[in-house]
Amino acid sequence: MSETKIPYKIYLTENEIPTAWYNLRADMKVKPAPLLNPGTGKPLTAEEMSGIFCEELVRQELDNDTAYYPIPEDIRNFYKMYRPSPLVRAYCLEEKLGTPAKIYYKFEGNNTSGSHKLNSAVAQAYYAKQQGLKGVTTETGAGQWGTALSMACSYFELDCKVFMVKVSYEQKPFRREVMRTYGASVTPSPSMETEIGKKILAEHPGTTGSLGCAISEAVEVAVTNPGYRYVLGSVLNQVLLHQSVIGLEAKAALDKYGIKPDVIIGCAGGGSNLGGLIAPFMGEKLRGEADYQIIAVEPASCPSFTRGKFAYDFCDTGMICPLAKMYTLGSSFIPSPNHAGGLRFHGMSTILSQLYHDGYMEARAAEQTAVFEAAETFARVEGILPAPESSHAIRAAIDEALKCKETGEEKTILFGLTGTGYFDLTAYQQFNDGVMTDYIPTDEDLAKGFAALPQVPGVE
Amino acid sequence: MSETKIPYKIYLTENEIPTAWYNLRADMKVKPAPLLNPGTGKPLTAEEMSGIFCEELVRQELDNDTAYYPIPEDIRNFYKMYRPSPLVRAYCLEEKLGTPAKIYYKFEGNNTSGSHKLNSAVAQAYYAKQQGLKGVTTETGAGQWGTALSMACSYFELDCKVFMVKVSYEQKPFRREVMRTYGASVTPSPSMETEIGKKILAEHPGTTGSLGCAISEAVEVAVTNPGYRYVLGSVLNQVLLHQSVIGLEAKAALDKYGIKPDVIIGCAGGGSNLGGLIAPFMGEKLRGEADYQIIAVEPASCPSFTRGKFAYDFCDTGMICPLAKMYTLGSSFIPSPNHAGGLRFHGMSTILSQLYHDGYMEARAAEQTAVFEAAETFARVEGILPAPESSHAIRAAIDEALKCKETGEEKTILFGLTGTGYFDLTAYQQFNDGVMTDYIPTDEDLAKGFAALPQVPGVE
Repeated sequence: MSETKIPYKIYLTENEIPTAWYNLRADMKVKPAPLLNPGTGKPLTAEEMSGIFCEELVRQELDNDTAYYPIPEDIRNFYKMYRPSPLVRAYCLEEKLGTPAKIYYKFEGNNTSGSHKLNSAVAQAYYAKQQGLKGVTTETGAGQWGTALSMACSYFELDCKVFMVKVSYEQKPFRREVMRTYGASVTPSPSMETEIGKKILAEHPGTTGSLGCAISEAVEVAVTNPGYRYVLGSVLNQVLLHQSVIGLEAKAALDKYGIKPDVIIGCAGGGSNLGGLIAPFMGEKLRGEADYQIIAVEPASCPSFTRGKFAYDFCDTGMICPLAKMYTLGSSFIPSPNHAGGLRFHGMSTILSQLYHDGYMEARAAEQTAVFEAAETFARVEGILPAPESSHAIRAAIDEALKCKETGEEKTILFGLTGTGYFDLTAYQQFNDGVMTDYIPTDEDLAKGFAALPQVPGVE
Repeated sequence: MSETKIPYKIYLTENEIPTAWYNLRADMKVKPAPLLNPGTGKPLTAEEMSGIFCEELVRQELDNDTAYYPIPEDIRNFYKMYRPSPLVRAYCLEEKLGTPAKIYYKFEGNNTSGSHKLNSAVAQAYYAKQQGLKGVTTETGAGQWGTALSMACSYFELDCKVFMVKVSYEQKPFRREVMRTYGASVTPSPSMETEIGKKILAEHPGTTGSLGCAISEAVEVAVTNPGYRYVLGSVLNQVLLHQSVIGLEAKAALDKYGIKPDVIIGCAGGGSNLGGLIAPFMGEKLRGEADYQIIAVEPASCPSFTRGKFAYDFCDTGMICPLAKMYTLGSSFIPSPNHAGGLRFHGMSTILSQLYHDGYMEARAAEQTAVFEAAETFARVEGILPAPESSHAIRAAIDEALKCKETGEEKTILFGLTGTGYFDLTAYQQFNDGVMTDYIPTDEDLAKGFAALPQVPGVE
């Protein structure tokens, strides 16, 4: 144990911003299963994907072998606006809990998008610009991804069309204005602007929407408008690649002080933050160089890892996207409204799904009120108002630290604080007023989603 | 000119957080005029003040001589949660403007209160706790001060009662929830909870309130409840003392790279940010060691410096506070609603008023739509969504940089970016929709305020 006094916040210098992203797949013995064409059941080719995604991003999506991707200079310059992000020693939280554990968090909320999403947004906008596109379409749940993409598109002067899950659109009206300030157009989803939106509205009038619906609409607009491509803020391999900057920075900062975490915790919706945070640590684990306890935390209302099936499924509700092999609740599963809009996706990154399946990480589900209790505790002592999504990780970190208090273990805990809750005050108000409720799907609810899992020709 | 490549963000280490605040008054040849007891017209004594303010803060308020006040360790530890704040080189803004000017901003919005207000809130809460008080009362305009104080009181386990200017309370409902999350109670002002509130409501039914009203209510509650004192987020000498941490850090960061600003710009409401930012620079100017062009920017709707009178006046609308000699529009002046709630105060710090009167600084007024144009430009290239208050400084910085573009001068401009605009999206929405208006008081409007200036026995 080093005797050096660890600062409250460890900042790397700008020169220490990683110069390359790390591709976790290169070190996976069992690679994530390929995306499939839902019509043929065959792995999606680069050619098929390039109608939806930018070419360079297709290459990144399909590349299971290259360990490091150099970060283009324009992207590194953009990163310098808000990176390196601080790695914070939670001295005040430790004291409040009376735990011998040492708690660190990597804080990704120090930018206007309010979350880590900007790390991939700028990369995807950059490659779209490089390809000479006019614009991009996307979906957003909590609004963080949409805001991030709006910022990135504004910087690179690209058109940006965002479909925002209706429940979030209504809960977070101000998010829309941030996106508009950055020049984006924002449509609540499902909408009447797309064929798939009309179909979903006809079948489920009054639906509050889901990420799956919004993805379908954004993809439809991208493929039917020349000069446009679709971009996605989570789930995909390319996104985890870009988000590796989180883990690489966190590890570099810890290494500077000779600190090795015992437990690494991240919230999990589609997996972008978790996959990015754990990337270099998981790499060491896969290569047998080190061991870490890695914990994914998801909402009990949308428990893909803890109650889902590991199967091929559509990424979207409209069933127009490729099939991905992942832990899923079924693409027809629409979770009850909760306040962690960024964690309301029915599926999960194929990379993380494979790693979870192979026993390299654990998963837990947390209930909403317990999550907000953790958020409030954290806010009061650490000064940062956390996003509901991030607060899932806080909940687990506090639980682990309290276990250490019982056992006397001095574990080092690292968690990802993905963002801030400035646009989640409706949720905080419900919590402050004592009227927040928990939603847990019944086995029957889940069975419906599983029953609708696609039958893929030639695939179990 | 140094050849070193200046980073996008200059971060000091935690050890470089200033160990003492700087008291600008020590270097002023003409000291700011003392606060007066409105009944006797005599300078307020420490004894008289100690019924309203904490004892240590009274000492700081009255001390025109001590140049440096050591920062207590508990406060420095709190500062470590969010300080040092970054000094940012606005490379992207410079490029967008095509200016040869070099623009730097000291960003104080990287904390949950969203502004620099936390710097003084933690100090005031600390001294209240040291004195064994139960709690504190205050007013808040835009909500940033109230949020900051809530955070500080939560940290030191003090009760916190906030009167929030009604127009801001309505425009920023989520601010209330942040304060509640930190355990504070929040009341829209004017309210029926105080005698002065009832009186103001009777005289001005339907008023949207003002900082002056809210101050009166908060003071009334403090002086009528044992164990409580009143704390104020701006105007007072003690607040400028605490806020000197902004300027001291900014100067230390610039000095590291051998940079000397030519122009220093801050928005001015009560003067807390401006006074803090300029403190060490103004100190050099007062001692004849260096020269700087120092510019205060205020809203055209509340133009204390540019159209006010330098006279003794009440700090509050209810006329129960001491008299301060300052640039004022009259304590009865209630500015038209604008979106920079933090700049809607009728008066100004006595320190800054004296310095302005003595020719050490300039002042400008900016109209609201021009301010939001600057805010949007800044947000799109620098990535940070600025508070409307801060955007006044951005407006002037852009104007100065554009002048340099015309003349070819390579001036170095430093401005204070006091906070973020996450709770100002109603304002951004108006701007985005093209329905924002400008309000400029007529000479007749101002004449009414001046006519009501108090006649103080024995004072001109």
